[in-house]
Order: sequence, then C-alpha cells, then structure tokens
Amino acid sequence: MTTWLRLTMVPGIGPRILADLLDCFDTPEAVLAADSRQLMGVPGVGTTLAHRIRHAADHVDTEGIQAWCEQTGTTILLRCAPEYPRALTELRDAPPVLFCGGHLQAQDALAVSIVGTRHATIYGRRQAERLAYGLARAGVTIVSGLARGIDTAAHRGALDAGGRTIAVLGGGLGKIYPPENAELAETIRGHGALLSEYRPDAAPRGGMFPQRNRLISGLAMAVIVVEAPDRSGALITARLAAEQGRDVFVVPGGVDSRASRGCLQLIRDGATMVRGPEDVLEDLGPAVDSIETDSGHTLRNGSELLLNDQERAVLQAIEPQATAIDAVVARSTLPVHRVLATITVLESRKLVRRLSGQYVARV
Amino acid sequence: MTTWLRLTMVPGIGPRILADLLDCFDTPEAVLAADSRQLMGVPGVGTTLAHRIRHAADHVDTEGIQAWCEQTGTTILLRCAPEYPRALTELRDAPPVLFCGGHLQAQDALAVSIVGTRHATIYGRRQAERLAYGLARAGVTIVSGLARGIDTAAHRGALDAGGRTIAVLGGGLGKIYPPENAELAETIRGHGALLSEYRPDAAPRGGMFPQRNRLISGLAMAVIVVEAPDRSGALITARLAAEQGRDVFVVPGGVDSRASRGCLQLIRDGATMVRGPEDVLEDLGPAVDSIETDSGHTLRNGSELLLNDQERAVLQAIEPQATAIDAVVARSTLPVHRVLATITVLESRKLVRRLSGQYVARV
Repeated sequence: MTTWLRLTMVPGIGPRILADLLDCFDTPEAVLAADSRQLMGVPGVGTTLAHRIRHAADHVDTEGIQAWCEQTGTTILLRCAPEYPRALTELRDAPPVLFCGGHLQAQDALAVSIVGTRHATIYGRRQAERLAYGLARAGVTIVSGLARGIDTAAHRGALDAGGRTIAVLGGGLGKIYPPENAELAETIRGHGALLSEYRPDAAPRGGMFPQRNRLISGLAMAVIVVEAPDRSGALITARLAAEQGRDVFVVPGGVDSRASRGCLQLIRDGATMVRGPEDVLEDLGPAVDSIETDSGHTLRNGSELLLNDQERAVLQAIEPQATAIDAVVARSTLPVHRVLATITVLESRKLVRRLSGQYVARV
Repeated sequence: MTTWLRLTMVPGIGPRILADLLDCFDTPEAVLAADSRQLMGVPGVGTTLAHRIRHAADHVDTEGIQAWCEQTGTTILLRCAPEYPRALTELRDAPPVLFCGGHLQAQDALAVSIVGTRHATIYGRRQAERLAYGLARAGVTIVSGLARGIDTAAHRGALDAGGRTIAVLGGGLGKIYPPENAELAETIRGHGALLSEYRPDAAPRGGMFPQRNRLISGLAMAVIVVEAPDRSGALITARLAAEQGRDVFVVPGGVDSRASRGCLQLIRDGATMVRGPEDVLEDLGPAVDSIETDSGHTLRNGSELLLNDQERAVLQAIEPQATAIDAVVARSTLPVHRVLATITVLESRKLVRRLSGQYVARV
C-alpha cells in the first residue's frame, strides 16, 4: 500500500504514465528502484519526472497521508481493491488510487450523475433537486462534483430524499471547495462518499476539474445535464460520458435562457431529453453488472426501479436463461393469469423476452 | 363554377363523400340531377343528405355567396384551378372549394406553419413572433389559424417583418373569429390570404377546427409547434403534419411549464427541436416542387434561404442533371477557386453532390 501510494502520488504521474511504467517494470517497487536512464526509456518520462520518481520519498509524505486518512476516517482504495468502484475499473484512465471519505456500497453501482453550471438559475437548481430527490427515492445513488449551483442542488436533493450521494472532488479531501459546502461535505460522508484521486492536501486547481469530470461520468450509468451555457464544463462531462458509453440525458429549458443553451445544443445533437425522474428511469440502460440493492433484490436494468411489487416479484422469478413459465408461477406464488399479464408488461418494458409459448428469459 | 359551388356547399358533403359521388356520377351536374335511390347507393349518403342534394338549390344560396365574394374581393378557388395551392392537391381530403380573401402567390409554396395554444404564455408568444419574423424575413410565408395566443403572434411576427402570412379559418370568411382579430385579418388580406373551405356565413364551430388544422399543416413544408399543453389542438395538427409527410418542429420550454408539456412530449417522441429561425431553415426538407421566389430565384430546398449571395449564385448555376464545373464557373462568373470552395459548402449543406472530379448536380 505504502509503495503504491508513494509512486502514484508523485506529482506528474497520471494514470497513463503509471500504466506505462508498470508495463515496463511490473511492480511499483521496481519502478521506485529503477535508475534515471531506465525510467526515461518510458514514453512521457523526462528528466524532472525521473528525478521525482527516484526521490519519491522526499516528494511524497506517505506516512503523513496515511496518518491524515486514519485520523479522518478516510479509506485509501487501490484500483485492485474489492471496494474500488467497479464502473471505474472499466476506464482506460481509471485512477490508481482513490481517497474515499465515507463508504461506498454495492448499491452505488446504480448511480446517475447530475451535472450543470455553477451559475445556475432558480429553475436549474429546482430541476436538479427534483431529479436527485426522485431518483434517490427510487434507490439511485446521485453522483456530482460538490460545486456551487447544480452540483450542490443535486447532492441536497438526494440527501433530502434520505438517499445516497457521492461527491467527486477536484482537489484533495482535506481541501473542500467551495468552502461554504464544508457542512454539506460532512453530511455526504455519512450518506455516501467523498471521492478524490488527489492527495488530501492538494488544492483544487482549474486543470483538475476536467480530469475529475471523467470520474463523475465514469461512476454512473448515465449523466444528466441540467443547465449548461455554451462552453460549460458540464458539456465536457457529457462528451466524456458519451465516450465512456454512458447515457447522456438533458433537461430542456427555454430557448431564451442562456443557462440552457448548451443543453439545447446537446438535444439538437441527439442527446435524450428528460423531463423528470420517471423519464430517466425509463431510459436507463442495463447496468454493467447486476446490482444488489439495499432491499436485497438483484437489479440488471435501471428501469426495473419503475416496477411495482408484483412486477418485481415476477421479474425476480425469471432467469437470464430460458425459464419455464410454470417455474415462474411456482416461484412467484401468483395466479397463472397474473403472471402472464405481468410478463406482457415486462416484455413491453424490454426487461424480459418470450422465447416460446412456454419459456421466457430475462434480457 | 355555380354547379360546383352548389354541390360542395350542401351541408354534410365533405371531401370524401364528394369524391365518392363524383366517382359514381362523373360530374357535379349529374350528381345534382340524380334521384334519391341512386344517391343513396353511394356509401355515407343517407335519406337526409340525399334529400339535401336533390334540393341543393333550396339549401345553398350560390348567388348570394358569389355576390358576397365579389363584393369583398374574395376569390373562389376550385380544386382544379391553377391558383389552388399545389401542396393541398396532394392531400387525399383536399377541400374541393377554397374561399380566398387576398392573394396566393407562387412563393407561398415556401411556407411554414406556426401553431400552438390559445392560452400562450409571454414566452410562447415571444417565440412565435420571433420565429415568424425571422422566417418571413428569409422569404418564408407563415401559415397559422388566426386564433388567440400563438397564432396571433405568428401572423403579427410575419407582418412586422414585411413578409407574407396566410390564415386558415375554422369558419367562413364572413365570420372572422375571434372578433378582436378582425383588423389583423384585414391586414393579412393585403399581405397574404385568408383561406376557408366553409361558406362565408358559416359560424366557426368546435368541430371545424380539427378539420381546418389539416389545411394549416397541408399548406406548409413544416409545422412548428410553439407551445402546447397536453391535449392541445396543436398536437392534432402535429399528428396530421406527420401523416401528411410534413416535418414537425418543436420549440422547447421549461419542464415546469404546463404550456410546454405537449411540446416536450413531441420531442420525447422524436420530433425535431428548434431554437430559432436558423434551426428551422437548416432542417427544412426539399420542397414538393421547385419554388419561384419573390426575387426571381428558383428554390428547391428551404435551407437554401441560409445561403449568402455567392453560394446562391453558384447553386443557381448547377442543374439537377450532371453539370460540368467549367460550366458552373462560366455561368457564375466567379474565379475557379471560389467556385470549388463554394461547392464544398453546398455539398456539406446537402444541396449539391459531386458526381466526379469534373461534374456536380443539384440534389
């Protein structure tokens, strides 16, 4: 752990250079033990970085970091740790280390990000809050960036609903920004997590935000852009989300609202328009993995959150493999005609498919 | 003319029954001369209608209608007349007779309809006016229904721009509704036309509006829905427009605006969102026929209105058949390198296509 931390916290080592270093030297210990000439054989490593790596112990106060983490209840998640978010491991540039204040849970795999401008209108803040509230009530974890405006409204909406929320910071966990959100950050620790790929004492800098944004989109099944003027950072997040294969949902606004211009452009470019939590749930694609929810169900698709108890019971009785309808009746303990009617509903929601008159399978 | 007028103005004869009657009897004279038994052999003709047709002279005061039209400068357009709008002749249920106050012109083939709720917000009225103004300035004729709210704003926007506008009425030309739009109607007569398929003294009735709407959409290349709550008549027009093969464009609004609910549903259902006149012009599909514009150009595609003078000159020099680039250079009297650069622009706007290095054709 200490070696990993020492190597990854060297200033100038990003996910790509790290990957190249490990490709070359195999272990972090070997990287730290290499000489300058060997290090500079790796693309992107120049004199300065090679020097920093060789003197990593001087540059990185791993003990200080670890002490701070222990003191504040912060977990250090290596990329190979089982608690490391599964959705991020897919990413080519997943951070090798994540600092986590609070706790990630299995159900956080069912996450939706809400992003938008810091200069939000009342309309935008209200929509962010309403979406976060509705989605969190349905069991979705809300991811955002703790910034002023839309981000703050999104975190608050999720917390008001008694739900979970994750804030991905553009600086270290010890440098909460903006300062007025310190209390909100504390609340999030107790109902989700604060995440950062930077050492705890790293001050947030402009350049870190676009990089941070890839985690906001990467952690979620979908990104909702609530209000974004032209050239807003939220549009970068939307582009990253699309590149990462995440759904991009957009809240519309009036054509005379400067704060909605980027949103309307995204809709013109083909992004899905959403009016509220129901639209989002309806359009949520399949999850990367099946997700264990809070209530002990297994979920494969965001739209399953729209189901009523009977529909959920029938769905849970159907396997991804061909399942005999008799078996579904037996497992769900519902009358045959109800099971058949419910299968029709599930079919129309594209959650199951009929294989023949007698067999169905979960999609 | 008198016979046509007498037959088509019989209460209860719509475009479909008329078509069936003419299929059966060939001429309007023969229909009016038929006996009850023969008439009732046509589907949809019962005792009452047969009686009315046989006594059409008692039911329809053709002389009175003709006198009224002469007095008010109203033209009676039979479906076969050359001035009858070409776009309507395509429709299965085109009205056999149109009363026209004012004048239709060849350039009115380049028309866009703007529809929306009578209970418009300030936002909606402003957008309708802005769209109508911008499109009318570009040379597009604005079609609407003279109703309160969005319709009124659309007509006014076109007139403010010094452009042309057509109002399709849900009653007779002698019964302008709503009464406060009498002056607007008079202005439209001088800068476009008032159209009605009903006898001039027909009072507007609720049932006539959906039928009227098919003409509002039918007259135009595209229909723009500006503000429409759930179950708005504008949504009927949008549906008719889609069935008639017309583009449906929709202005978005806030998700908290009741007046925009129908619009947002249309966008969710796949209609094209537009933010202003440029979006509309960019997306306007090809015209039914090439259109002779006011300025003497021939137009095949609404998006040609976005071109600058040089682009227009090059486009006009290209035929629908393979045209040698040398010929384009000669006709346009522009330097070769400008012609080549302009062809690239026209190609990106999908107005021309390159057939080879030496030949281009208009799309």
